[in-house]
Amino acid sequence: MGILQLLIPKDRIFFPLLEKASFNLVTISKALYDALTTTSAEERIVLIREIERIEHEGDKVTHEIMHQLSATFITPFDREDIHELTSAIDDILDHIHGSAKRIEIYKVTNISPAMIKLAELIQQAADELYKAIHELRDLKNTNTIREASIRINSIENHADDVFDNAVAKLFEEEKDAIELIKIKEVLQNLEKATDKCEDAANVLSSILVKHS
Amino acid sequence: MGILQLLIPKDRIFFPLLEKASFNLVTISKALYDALTTTSAEERIVLIREIERIEHEGDKVTHEIMHQLSATFITPFDREDIHELTSAIDDILDHIHGSAKRIEIYKVTNISPAMIKLAELIQQAADELYKAIHELRDLKNTNTIREASIRINSIENHADDVFDNAVAKLFEEEKDAIELIKIKEVLQNLEKATDKCEDAANVLSSILVKHS
Amino acid sequence: MGILQLLIPKDRIFFPLLEKASFNLVTISKALYDALTTTSAEERIVLIREIERIEHEGDKVTHEIMHQLSATFITPFDREDIHELTSAIDDILDHIHGSAKRIEIYKVTNISPAMIKLAELIQQAADELYKAIHELRDLKNTNTIREASIRINSIENHADDVFDNAVAKLFEEEKDAIELIKIKEVLQNLEKATDKCEDAANVLSSILVKHS
Repeated sequence: MGILQLLIPKDRIFFPLLEKASFNLVTISKALYDALTTTSAEERIVLIREIERIEHEGDKVTHEIMHQLSATFITPFDREDIHELTSAIDDILDHIHGSAKRIEIYKVTNISPAMIKLAELIQQAADELYKAIHELRDLKNTNTIREASIRINSIENHADDVFDNAVAKLFEEEKDAIELIKIKEVLQNLEKATDKCEDAANVLSSILVKHS
Repeated sequence: MGILQLLIPKDRIFFPLLEKASFNLVTISKALYDALTTTSAEERIVLIREIERIEHEGDKVTHEIMHQLSATFITPFDREDIHELTSAIDDILDHIHGSAKRIEIYKVTNISPAMIKLAELIQQAADELYKAIHELRDLKNTNTIREASIRINSIENHADDVFDNAVAKLFEEEKDAIELIKIKEVLQNLEKATDKCEDAANVLSSILVKHS
Repeated sequence: MGILQLLIPKDRIFFPLLEKASFNLVTISKALYDALTTTSAEERIVLIREIERIEHEGDKVTHEIMHQLSATFITPFDREDIHELTSAIDDILDHIHGSAKRIEIYKVTNISPAMIKLAELIQQAADELYKAIHELRDLKNTNTIREASIRINSIENHADDVFDNAVAKLFEEEKDAIELIKIKEVLQNLEKATDKCEDAANVLSSILVKHS
């Protein structure tokens, strides 16, 4: 790894931006979990506004990374990996925002345990991504990235099960079709967020393979 | 820019194809707007047939561009940018066709103001894309591309708001779940079309950055 | 073609993996068709478990190909074509699994003729992809790939019609919104599977163009 570190150009553009993106990921996941677990309707709205704000912030970071990818000649990793990682993070924020927005627009008041569990899993995956992305800078503890990737894959599997069971239960118990549509869409957005965490983790694995 | 223009090879393949694609975009958007605003059921069906025809035409252009990307050694822009731009335009046509098809298949007769507003926004974005794509040829007035991109981003934001409000209203007022599903899907396809216009605009911005 | 065959490095990594992926495609499509046509509820469950197993198997092959793409310096075709082809196959398996899973979770017992027809079309497309992918190895009978690609495109068009008619009929006849949602989702997953077969066929065409 010693030689590798010498060869990697001291990037001052992409690492800070990716770290900013991963920070948004952590804060939006925390806001989501808080929004789903608060008992106060007012606080929930405040937190959904916050989720919106962070998603908007994330959009700016995404645009900036994409702009820098076009404008910069040398990138610390394969251009397409940075592109894919950024898109995946952008998609995670989008789906988190999508679930929160639906809770507001559809006036969903009955937050189910499955929704809270999925939000918890998203938060765990976001924390893992945060750690792994900070390791990209010097690639000293590649095990951190490797382990994060394994954990995120298992989190996504877990989320799949939670989602499948929740949807099966929903179709068994919910007789009001419009209610069913609302809850199903919230669950779907939460589950998609964990899918996109796995996509991000796969890009990190791929970067690792290329640099070892 | 003078030197740049000398360096860009005189492309006789991709510019005409991309311009054809952008022309399809303009005519399909116009047909969509007309289909949503006509008061004649027969005329609507004629226009939906026309939308289908243009979408089919667009598929051929997409295939031709993709074929040329594989067969041509030198491209006027990054291969992946042409690929992404073409895919985005293809997706816009698909979603426009998707909304029109659903209006027909689901026998939606009650065209809401939100649908018409979204069709209007799609038409505006298509016009902007048309202008911007024609600027690619010599990149003389790069401001045209820059301004088109900014306007399309703001059109997409506007479309998001129109969509969110329409869906919130739908869930408040529509008590027939099957009706709700039909209208929601038409709205979703229209909104997705504006998303894809934004994707196309982002590729154009990225091409601009690389050539300035 | 003689010189071409000399130039292509004897790949011992990607061909076996892609052939394995195409084999999974054939077995999962057969299991799907059998699951939809069996009259025994127990056998259907056994076949859905089998579909799940193959999908899981396919995930491993996908990961292995993606890993090899990062770890291998020389690839027999453009890196991005292998990536796209693998993703398309992975998506086909996902949508087949998605349709089977929904039949189980939603307790869909009334398998419609349209579902069976779509499963039949998926099986035909999978067989074509299997043959075409085995031709990649020496590219001797490029017509096999060309003809497979044409047939898959026509299969996808056919599937589109079957799907559109089935959905139109569903909205006309099914008055229970929750039933409608269930059946529509199963149909959508089946139709998406044929879309992804077309995506895979398009990548094969593109590889062909580059090597002729």
